[in-house]
Amino acid sequence: MRLSELGEFGLIRRLQEACAAANDRVILGIGDDAAVIRCGEDGRLVLTTDAMVEGVHFERAWYPPDSLGWKCLAVNLSDVAAMGASPICCVVTAALPESWSVEETEALYAGLKRCADRYRCPVVGGDTVRSTAGAVFSVAVLGEMTGTSEIRRSGAAAGDRICVTGVLGGAAVGLNVLCSGGKDRDRFSESVRRLLEPLPRAETGVRLARSGGVTSMIDISDGLTSELRHLCEASGLGCLLYADRVPVSAETASWAAESGKSPVGLALESGEEYELLFTVNPSVRIDTAGPGFIGPEDTVTVIGEMRPPEDGMRIREGGVDSTLRVRGWDHYRSASGNS
Amino acid sequence: MRLSELGEFGLIRRLQEACAAANDRVILGIGDDAAVIRCGEDGRLVLTTDAMVEGVHFERAWYPPDSLGWKCLAVNLSDVAAMGASPICCVVTAALPESWSVEETEALYAGLKRCADRYRCPVVGGDTVRSTAGAVFSVAVLGEMTGTSEIRRSGAAAGDRICVTGVLGGAAVGLNVLCSGGKDRDRFSESVRRLLEPLPRAETGVRLARSGGVTSMIDISDGLTSELRHLCEASGLGCLLYADRVPVSAETASWAAESGKSPVGLALESGEEYELLFTVNPSVRIDTAGPGFIGPEDTVTVIGEMRPPEDGMRIREGGVDSTLRVRGWDHYRSASGNS
Repeated sequence: MRLSELGEFGLIRRLQEACAAANDRVILGIGDDAAVIRCGEDGRLVLTTDAMVEGVHFERAWYPPDSLGWKCLAVNLSDVAAMGASPICCVVTAALPESWSVEETEALYAGLKRCADRYRCPVVGGDTVRSTAGAVFSVAVLGEMTGTSEIRRSGAAAGDRICVTGVLGGAAVGLNVLCSGGKDRDRFSESVRRLLEPLPRAETGVRLARSGGVTSMIDISDGLTSELRHLCEASGLGCLLYADRVPVSAETASWAAESGKSPVGLALESGEEYELLFTVNPSVRIDTAGPGFIGPEDTVTVIGEMRPPEDGMRIREGGVDSTLRVRGWDHYRSASGNS
Repeated sequence: MRLSELGEFGLIRRLQEACAAANDRVILGIGDDAAVIRCGEDGRLVLTTDAMVEGVHFERAWYPPDSLGWKCLAVNLSDVAAMGASPICCVVTAALPESWSVEETEALYAGLKRCADRYRCPVVGGDTVRSTAGAVFSVAVLGEMTGTSEIRRSGAAAGDRICVTGVLGGAAVGLNVLCSGGKDRDRFSESVRRLLEPLPRAETGVRLARSGGVTSMIDISDGLTSELRHLCEASGLGCLLYADRVPVSAETASWAAESGKSPVGLALESGEEYELLFTVNPSVRIDTAGPGFIGPEDTVTVIGEMRPPEDGMRIREGGVDSTLRVRGWDHYRSASGNS
């Protein structure tokens, strides 16, 4: 059997099965945004890794090395945030083809450093190896829970509200703009920035964990519907998504109008958004002005509710409920569609 | 400037400079076998990462996926051991070409699991991505110091004895045997095993740290002379290596005799040995039977002494002292020779 037949998630399940054995230090292993490890009396560490591969996650033609360095760390910080944890430090592996210049490599490290400084997650080690083909960057981040338990994917209950930070769709627009030669770059600059240098919701994730009302959380790396399916599967629930409430970025709305695409469709399927998708106990007030819940710079939108498992995954659009079509990015399949 | 002009160690220095900033949690950053991070009142964690790249570290034609899974974790455990630390858990990134079969991938994970079980270092997370060319595996291991401080590269003093665990040369012999079609595989099975599935000195590293007499330590991944130079540079010292005392494996001696090569030369330059090279205060007795120093299954050989910096790096061979020629593996240069 080829890997493309099994698919990325099938492969992750096999890895999970193969490596299921743990020790008494491991509180949570494979299957969430990060692993959770016991440390000392009551300390909890998180550990996560994520890679970027040339030709899969980026093309050298349109990805400035400086932004690449930023993003490779940022996507890991997003995973740490999705647990409600704070970063401590990171290590990086850079497998670089000989054709890379020293200047490009230094720009890569400068972008990595910029992100490390911004999020206080110093690079404490790394491995630099030659690659015989494209470049591969892999970052692992160590983080810690500070005063709260981790927020897992599995903690949602039927009736919980489904919420998302920020506005969606920009990463898909940015990718389209760059892949079509970049001529509309200036008009869609925020979308391009979002794709090239995402801002992980680091502080927001910690605040959400401390709020006490968040029951499950995940970051949007593969697309909202795909991540929502992870929350439903891990929590053993169904859901109802309110399509009309999904927050769409202004540039996404413009680009969709010009391209004849559905703005909500883009927002639902756009990967690499690095917003947080989470569920909240309905007795907790979701209010950006709410004391200590989330900061004033964050926006949170209620976009649905968790339902009993027998309801399945549904979407309400223009008052009509139908089955939610889940689409996300699968690295071994050019497009993955499962309902 | 091309990366091949700068070389691997030049690149690591640039990364080190670029990422020098740390925070109060980082006790030791880039530049040793692993980083050391403060955790809680008096806890110390270590974090390290190491990658294996197809076409650079291995060829698919002669590397069974099961052994590859083992080795990718083992080389990281060797780094943890070289700090005197114990592993807690690891995360893995596997960038696999679509041409890999599911069976090969499962064998890879099975080998990883076998090593994880043997050394009690469970796989707690990972990222599986498509690679557009060769396979790249990157593992990051989290470990901890248990009751001792970490052993750094920089702690040696003039007069300290230079010691090495085990016997050397096997990895070079194994590589030669496999690269020449493997027809002598059975006769050099221990060397091939050593190359394909190295046994990191996990318990030995911890025992050495607890002995109280070890002043500096590093693992042999790039070759003994290259690692010795790291100890000399980090400690600001010179050294005198006793060539005649360097422990050579029996198979290395046989292979060298048949091939007209110098057995000691092979032992000095063979990379991927994953033995520990360390320095010991001369007042501490180096004795395999010494209580608590190292275990009965370990052999330790004194192969030289640290000297004042003005002596430089020297080698004594047949009673004659000369400048030690340092050779090691540089991934961006097919052969690297510096004196």
